[in-house]
Amino acid sequence: MNDFPGSAPASAIGALLADLGDIPVVTDASVVRKRSRDFFWYSPILNEALAGKSADLIATPRDEADVIRVAAACARHRVPLTVRAGGTGNYGQAVPLHGGVLLDITALSAIEWTRPGAIRVGVGAMMNAIDAQTQPSGWELRMHPSTKRTATIGGFVAGGSGGIGSITYGGLREAGNILAARVVTLEEQPRVIELRGDAAQKVNRAYGTTGIITALEMPLAPAWTWIEMVVVFDDFLDAAQFGYEAALSDGIVKKLLSPVAWPIPSYFGALKQYCPEGKSVLIAMVAEPSVESFRTLLGDRGEITFAAPADDSTGRVPLYEYTWNHTTLQVLKAGRSVTYLQCLYPHDRLIESVRQMQEMFPDEVLPHLEFIRFGGRVTCSGLPVVRYRDADRLNEIIALHEENDVFIANPHVYTVEDGSRYKRADADQLGFKHEVDPYGLLNPGKMRSFVPVAD
Amino acid sequence: MNDFPGSAPASAIGALLADLGDIPVVTDASVVRKRSRDFFWYSPILNEALAGKSADLIATPRDEADVIRVAAACARHRVPLTVRAGGTGNYGQAVPLHGGVLLDITALSAIEWTRPGAIRVGVGAMMNAIDAQTQPSGWELRMHPSTKRTATIGGFVAGGSGGIGSITYGGLREAGNILAARVVTLEEQPRVIELRGDAAQKVNRAYGTTGIITALEMPLAPAWTWIEMVVVFDDFLDAAQFGYEAALSDGIVKKLLSPVAWPIPSYFGALKQYCPEGKSVLIAMVAEPSVESFRTLLGDRGEITFAAPADDSTGRVPLYEYTWNHTTLQVLKAGRSVTYLQCLYPHDRLIESVRQMQEMFPDEVLPHLEFIRFGGRVTCSGLPVVRYRDADRLNEIIALHEENDVFIANPHVYTVEDGSRYKRADADQLGFKHEVDPYGLLNPGKMRSFVPVAD
Repeated sequence: MNDFPGSAPASAIGALLADLGDIPVVTDASVVRKRSRDFFWYSPILNEALAGKSADLIATPRDEADVIRVAAACARHRVPLTVRAGGTGNYGQAVPLHGGVLLDITALSAIEWTRPGAIRVGVGAMMNAIDAQTQPSGWELRMHPSTKRTATIGGFVAGGSGGIGSITYGGLREAGNILAARVVTLEEQPRVIELRGDAAQKVNRAYGTTGIITALEMPLAPAWTWIEMVVVFDDFLDAAQFGYEAALSDGIVKKLLSPVAWPIPSYFGALKQYCPEGKSVLIAMVAEPSVESFRTLLGDRGEITFAAPADDSTGRVPLYEYTWNHTTLQVLKAGRSVTYLQCLYPHDRLIESVRQMQEMFPDEVLPHLEFIRFGGRVTCSGLPVVRYRDADRLNEIIALHEENDVFIANPHVYTVEDGSRYKRADADQLGFKHEVDPYGLLNPGKMRSFVPVAD
Repeated sequence: MNDFPGSAPASAIGALLADLGDIPVVTDASVVRKRSRDFFWYSPILNEALAGKSADLIATPRDEADVIRVAAACARHRVPLTVRAGGTGNYGQAVPLHGGVLLDITALSAIEWTRPGAIRVGVGAMMNAIDAQTQPSGWELRMHPSTKRTATIGGFVAGGSGGIGSITYGGLREAGNILAARVVTLEEQPRVIELRGDAAQKVNRAYGTTGIITALEMPLAPAWTWIEMVVVFDDFLDAAQFGYEAALSDGIVKKLLSPVAWPIPSYFGALKQYCPEGKSVLIAMVAEPSVESFRTLLGDRGEITFAAPADDSTGRVPLYEYTWNHTTLQVLKAGRSVTYLQCLYPHDRLIESVRQMQEMFPDEVLPHLEFIRFGGRVTCSGLPVVRYRDADRLNEIIALHEENDVFIANPHVYTVEDGSRYKRADADQLGFKHEVDPYGLLNPGKMRSFVPVAD
C-alpha cells in the first residue's frame, strides 16, 4: 500500500469547489459513489478491497483549459484527482482510493484531425465513435478492448493493454501503437507536455498516475470488411492448434482469434445456438478476402457454424463481446462463483504449455486464449475462467502458472506495479511521475513505488 | 537430370507451325536465342550449363484461346513448351533445355476485376502496371521482386518466392498469398482448370512445369505512402540488430528491411552518395505514419542519410532496386568475379547465426540480409555476395552453411527440386504434373523427379 496520508479534509474540498467556478461538478454522494466504481467486481478480492471507495465530487471539464483549472486547484489544495472515463476497467483503475476529485474527461472527445494512417483526438472520444468516423474513409483504430462500445480511447491507453487487433499489431506497449500523448501536469501552475514516440509510453497503462492525458495521437489501420465467425471443435486443443496456425499465417489478414473451451460457450447467451453442446469454439474476425484461405486452412478439422460481416453499430452485438474479458463477463452473468486470470504463455512452446495448464487444473481453470503478437512473436494471452474458492487457492494457482513460465498479470490487485507484469510499458513512468505530479495527487495509491518528495 | 529424350525433330516443329495458324510467332534464330535467356548468368555455374540453350520458336498468344491452340499443337506433335514472360528469373526458369516453343504470355495482361483486397488479372500483367492501376484506389500487390518494373505477376508466381513485402506477409508459399490460378493443360484436348485456395500452390515456383497459367487471383494490400530510407551503421551487426528489432515491431508498418555489409554499398552507383565509406547500411521502406516510431526505435544507433517517398514510376530508380537480388546485380555491374547464395537463417538464434556465418567467411561471403516472415516467424533471407573461386569452393560454402542450420536454396542449379529448398510450395506438384502434362512437355528437365508415364 501507498503511504498516502489519507483523503482531503472537507475544508480543502470546499475551497477547491470555490476555485472551480463554472466548471460543471456533481457532489450528490450517491451519484459520485456510483461513478467511482468500475468493473473491479470481476475479482472477488478487489470487490472486497475497493468496496465503498469513492471520490468527494465529480468535475467535468469542457475543454483542456478546464482541465488545467481543475489540476491547479487540486494542487493548490492538495486534493487527490482520479481520472475517469467509460469506467470499463477491471482493476479499479478509475476508483479513487483516497477521495478527492473524480475527473470525468468524456467531454474532451473532439477529433482534432485525421490523416491516412493516423488520428489525433480528445482523450474522451469513444472508441466506436472514432471508428464510425474514420471507417467510411477506409480507416479504423488498430486495436480495441472488448468494451469498445462503451470505452474511450484515453481509458484504453491509461488502463488497457491490447485486445481485438493485437494479433496483428501487438499491444499498446509496442513501438508505434501510441504516436503521441498530450498531458497536463498536477501542479499549482500546470504545464502541458507533448509526449511523442516512445515518450508517449509514459502514460501507457499508468492508470492516470503520470499526468492527465487530454489528447492522443493514434495510428490507424486499414478498415477491412471483417467477417466474424464461430468455428467449433471436438477438442479445445484442436481449437488452439488451428488458431495457432491461423495466427502464424501472415497471408491471412485477421483481427481476432479466440479459442474458448467448453463449457464456457454454454454461457454465451444469444451466441449459444452456434455453440453445440460439449464443443470448444474459436471466435475469429478475418478480412473478407482472406476468408477462403482461412476455410482452406481449417479443412475438416472444425466446423464454421456462424459467419457474417462484423457490425458493432447501435443495436448489434458484435462477436468480440464474447472474447477477451467479455468472455469472463458472459459467465459472470450466471453468478459470481467464478473469476479469471490474465496469462502470457511462452511463445516457444505455446501449445505444450497450454496443454500443461489445462491438465494441471481440470474443471477449475477453464481455458480461454487470445492469440496476440507480443514482441514480434505469436503467442497467447490467456483469460481463463477460474472457479473461485478463496484468495489462497487463487494465489496458489497463480504461483503454479508462474513456476511453469506462464506469466500472470494479476487482475486481483489494483496497483500498476503488481498488476501489469508483462503488460507494463517500457518507460520510466516513476521518474516521469515525479516531474508531473510532485505531490502525488494523481490517482494516489495506484503507483505503489511512488513516494512524493514535495510536500 | 531429367531423362527427357531430347529436342523435337524439325519435322515436328514444321507441323506445329502449320497448326498455329494466325497466332504470332517468331522463328528468327537470333531473336529466339536471345529471348530464351534469363538472368541465370548471375551464376557462373549456370552460365556454363545453360549456354546456347534455345527454343526453336516463340509463340505469342493473344488470349487464352490461343494458349489452348498452342498447347494442343505441342501435345499433338510432342514439342516441348516453355513459358516465358519478363525473363527476370535467375535460375534459368524460362530457359528451354530441349528447344521447342517459347510461349510469350505477356499479351495476356488484362485486369479481369479488382475488389477491395483482391485482383484477378491475366498472367502476363506487369507488376508495376498492376500497382499503378490499383494504387489510386488505395491498393497494391502484397509483395513483389526487386525486378517489379520489368516482371510479370505470372513470372513471379511461377519462378519467384517472395520479396519486398515479405517482411509483412511472408512468401508466396504462405496461405492466402495466392488466391487462385487458372491453368491450361498440355494435352491434345487441353483442359482449363481453376485452382483455388491451397490448390493454387501447385503452380507456385514450379517454373511452369505444372500447367500453363493464364490468370491469377492475388490478394492486395493497403497501399501506404512508403518512405524509403538509407540508414548507415558503423558495424554490420548493428544494422542487422536494428533491422531485427524493427522487424519484430508489429506497430511499425514496413515493406522492406535490408541490411547490407560494407563494401557492398560501394557498388551502389547513384545511391553511393548516401553510403559513407566503410559503413554498412540498412535500406528500408516504412509507411509514412510509422516513420517517427522507426526513428525513435533507431535512436542514435545509426544515421538516416536518405529519406523520401518511394516512387517507382517511369524514370525513377526505387531503393528496392538495391535490395534482394538487385543488390547482387549492383556488384555484378562492376565485374563477374562474384556470385551469390540464397540462405534462410534459423529464426530462434538469428543474430548469432548471422554473426557466425560472417566470421566463417571473412572477405569471401559478404553479408546481405532481407528480413522476412517465414511460417509466421521473423527471420532473414540472406543473399550474400560471394567472391567466386570455383564450383567446389562454392559447394563447400553451401555445405558449411547447411551444417550450421543455415538452409540454402541453391541458385546455381536449374531444377525445381534442387533449387527451391525452403522456398518450395507445400503442394503435390509432381502428382499434379502427371494430370496436366502427361507427356512431360512443359519446361522439360526442370522438374527432375518427373518421369512421364504417357508416350
